Amino acid sequence: MTQNILSLDTVALDEEKNALKIIDQTKLPGKVEILSLSKLEDIYEAIYLLKVRGAPAIGVAAAIGIYLAALEIDEASYDGFYARFKKAKDYLASSRPTAVNLFWALDRMEKVVLDNKGAAPSKLKALLRDEAVKIREEDIKICRSIGEYGLSLIKDGDGILTHCNAGQLATTRYGTALAPIHLGREKGMNFKVFCDETRPLLQGARLSAFEMVCAGVDTTLICDNMASMVMKNGWVKACFVGCDRVAANGDAANKIGTSGVAILAKHYGIPFYVCAPTSTIDMNIKTGKDIVIEERKPEEITEMWYKERMAPAGVKVFNPAFDVTGNELITAMITEYGIARAPYTESFKAIFAKKE
Amino acid sequence: MTQNILSLDTVALDEEKNALKIIDQTKLPGKVEILSLSKLEDIYEAIYLLKVRGAPAIGVAAAIGIYLAALEIDEASYDGFYARFKKAKDYLASSRPTAVNLFWALDRMEKVVLDNKGAAPSKLKALLRDEAVKIREEDIKICRSIGEYGLSLIKDGDGILTHCNAGQLATTRYGTALAPIHLGREKGMNFKVFCDETRPLLQGARLSAFEMVCAGVDTTLICDNMASMVMKNGWVKACFVGCDRVAANGDAANKIGTSGVAILAKHYGIPFYVCAPTSTIDMNIKTGKDIVIEERKPEEITEMWYKERMAPAGVKVFNPAFDVTGNELITAMITEYGIARAPYTESFKAIFAKKE
Repeated sequence: MTQNILSLDTVALDEEKNALKIIDQTKLPGKVEILSLSKLEDIYEAIYLLKVRGAPAIGVAAAIGIYLAALEIDEASYDGFYARFKKAKDYLASSRPTAVNLFWALDRMEKVVLDNKGAAPSKLKALLRDEAVKIREEDIKICRSIGEYGLSLIKDGDGILTHCNAGQLATTRYGTALAPIHLGREKGMNFKVFCDETRPLLQGARLSAFEMVCAGVDTTLICDNMASMVMKNGWVKACFVGCDRVAANGDAANKIGTSGVAILAKHYGIPFYVCAPTSTIDMNIKTGKDIVIEERKPEEITEMWYKERMAPAGVKVFNPAFDVTGNELITAMITEYGIARAPYTESFKAIFAKKE
Repeated sequence: MTQNILSLDTVALDEEKNALKIIDQTKLPGKVEILSLSKLEDIYEAIYLLKVRGAPAIGVAAAIGIYLAALEIDEASYDGFYARFKKAKDYLASSRPTAVNLFWALDRMEKVVLDNKGAAPSKLKALLRDEAVKIREEDIKICRSIGEYGLSLIKDGDGILTHCNAGQLATTRYGTALAPIHLGREKGMNFKVFCDETRPLLQGARLSAFEMVCAGVDTTLICDNMASMVMKNGWVKACFVGCDRVAANGDAANKIGTSGVAILAKHYGIPFYVCAPTSTIDMNIKTGKDIVIEERKPEEITEMWYKERMAPAGVKVFNPAFDVTGNELITAMITEYGIARAPYTESFKAIFAKKE
């Protein structure tokens, strides 16, 4: 290990160089490469090509990105500034059409400009810098809080199973599902973490296993289809996963395979926890049935990473990026404001009341 | 598709060339290459390197292999012949230490020599040829019978999910789990088959998907972690899998991931069928707990097939080749003598009574 990724934030603002600093996640685990991006086109490409991924990390990268774009605007008038800001915002928003946090962060940045109508561009630039820094700092705080609540549910030495990567590499720091592990490590505890490799994009093998090994955690990589045996062997005391969008009834969309892990956990009597920043809970959506699932290209399954194609010509491929885990399979949802349990329609109200 | 593998038996005796003919399964699905092997060393290597795999297919290959080895023995006396036969048998038996059918087939061949003590080597060679041909023909008959029983459990057009490859490529012809599909096709029926890719060795993607596409079946490849979503979508009417060893109580060892599929099927109310030639039912083993599970090397998960390593240095890897599916998860076991249902301790007795 030449460089410990945990000493680096996943996304940061480099104020000396006026640049977005990210770890290029497409190079992991082979190589830890830090990118320093100043041009809007390069930041767009970094999001588009998954060099930075994970909903919270994308949101922070977009906030810093649009701030850096604003710095380049040499207009004296508010209207001239806003017109060019809006154009840059729309461009950046098109980098990943389904990432909710991307729009959320960009809308927050735009609100700064709209709330200060008529202000001088130099003032707006300073305010935008503060908002980007705030979004990033909030992300760290939210993840730390989720980590604390999550940690209260497990004991030192426990075996933990996770799917995909909802770790530090998906956020600025700590992660969501892996935040309890990182915080536990800070407190001198340790855990035995099992990482599902998470086909087809291998975020478990490439990212979660990497950050767990960096954190000095006893980390075991398994194929997705081995989770049943690992649970049957009694090695798993709890499952922790992240989520991309949660409906008002607690149905949770997350990386494909999550619902299968939840069904296995229920079968073996193991608690199954979903770590959900309140930004991912969509109270306008009643149930998981209303969450549209993105299907991705067949080549991710048949060809990607391989030396040669690993499937016959003429075969159909089904490649959904996410699945929905029914709320009845979820032991608890861990938010930055506390732990919600079924019925979620009720407990989410209490969570949001704390937020306000 | 340059060559339809279904027109070729997986293992056969070429009597013109005195050779074992096999499809090299390590080259699939990229290339259909037929190997013609006469030397004992080459046959050993083909089994060792998984050019021929699947318990029934290995058994047939070993029977033909030891016959071909016997042909080369130029000894005039029975004792001289048997000594060299025994040496060749032991050598071939060491090619895959855990494959039960390998020993079973070689023992059957040795019994021919032992039952004809004192016979002339020329006579023994003729008898060994007949036994090898018989073992191969029995395999086809057993698979066809399993296919007929399996077919009685499904309807034309049904969606079927299978894991790993228990198809024609694992036997001489038809397969076990895929025999109902092949027989249905012969009768003009069709099915929608979902093949789990089956990490880490991808037998589902490379072999099952290939033979299903060759059979003109509507075939969809999925990653192992997508089975839950496919079942939830209502696309699967039944699951069919093979097995490597079944205990007296019906607990069944099969390719890693099988138990997970069974748990999902139970959750979604989908029948889960294990296709088991009686040769795989071991009445001497009471429960699945007594079945030793082979663990294979980490590189199958971290490096195999890939352009570069896909896991961090320092990570542990757990790579069991099989898991045990509890009998309570199995809707029925399909044998060549009929369909057994729980309690299996009773129903297996009835099955074995038919065999005798």
